[in-house]
Amino acid sequence: MADSIFLKIIAGDIPCHKVFENTDILAFLDVAPLSLGHTLVIPKESAATIDQLSDNSAAALGRVLPRISRAVVKATGAVGFNILQNNGPAAHQAVMHVHFHIIPKFLNKNEGSGLDIQWTAGTLNNDIGRSIAAKIVEAIE
Amino acid sequence: MADSIFLKIIAGDIPCHKVFENTDILAFLDVAPLSLGHTLVIPKESAATIDQLSDNSAAALGRVLPRISRAVVKATGAVGFNILQNNGPAAHQAVMHVHFHIIPKFLNKNEGSGLDIQWTAGTLNNDIGRSIAAKIVEAIE
Repeated sequence: MADSIFLKIIAGDIPCHKVFENTDILAFLDVAPLSLGHTLVIPKESAATIDQLSDNSAAALGRVLPRISRAVVKATGAVGFNILQNNGPAAHQAVMHVHFHIIPKFLNKNEGSGLDIQWTAGTLNNDIGRSIAAKIVEAIE
Repeated sequence: MADSIFLKIIAGDIPCHKVFENTDILAFLDVAPLSLGHTLVIPKESAATIDQLSDNSAAALGRVLPRISRAVVKATGAVGFNILQNNGPAAHQAVMHVHFHIIPKFLNKNEGSGLDIQWTAGTLNNDIGRSIAAKIVEAIE
């Protein structure tokens, strides 16, 4: 199973550099970091993508992000950081178990360049906006 | 104030294409989308970056991500999506009020290319990993 790496880490069968754990959540260093202190925060609940995750696990994930982020910044001296969570192979997801990346940014590139983003933004047309917002509202459970 | 745009949207002084609202959270379409259905999810609490946000607001944010993501995917037909939250100008943050982007990915580029990421990963050295993990653990409140 593609998600077995993280389940094995949760079970303690594969070692990790753990930075935080509670009933619902585990956080540990990414072994293929984009920068110093690159941390993964994952739910213990098994779900491939966040749209399949329970509301309670998602809330538990959200709740620890400020605290873990502060600790990563304090420990590394980062000047900023990105939080990224990818869903599906088309969106760069490699391990099919929900995970949030906390990726520090540094002025000194010796500590890694962090997340490199190309931001090719368009402009929202009002008619398209009205139409797609109405569809999303209708689709909300 | 740099965060006034989102506070004005929350107050209803600036219009938005709203897709979800509850006591703690507002979600609406990004006016400069990377793809069709690009949605912003923000706390009503005023905080520039997630490390400054209260645990309760962060939990409320996390809790709605599965539900809003499902609705965005259902409404747009996206084949995947990225959730991104930037902290600090060095990490591409433009509006200094916490916001999570939900950015759909499509096979058809007519609907926008979505989030373009360069993923230049290193390999975590075990000694550095042990050292930085210990510092993060020590910094956790």
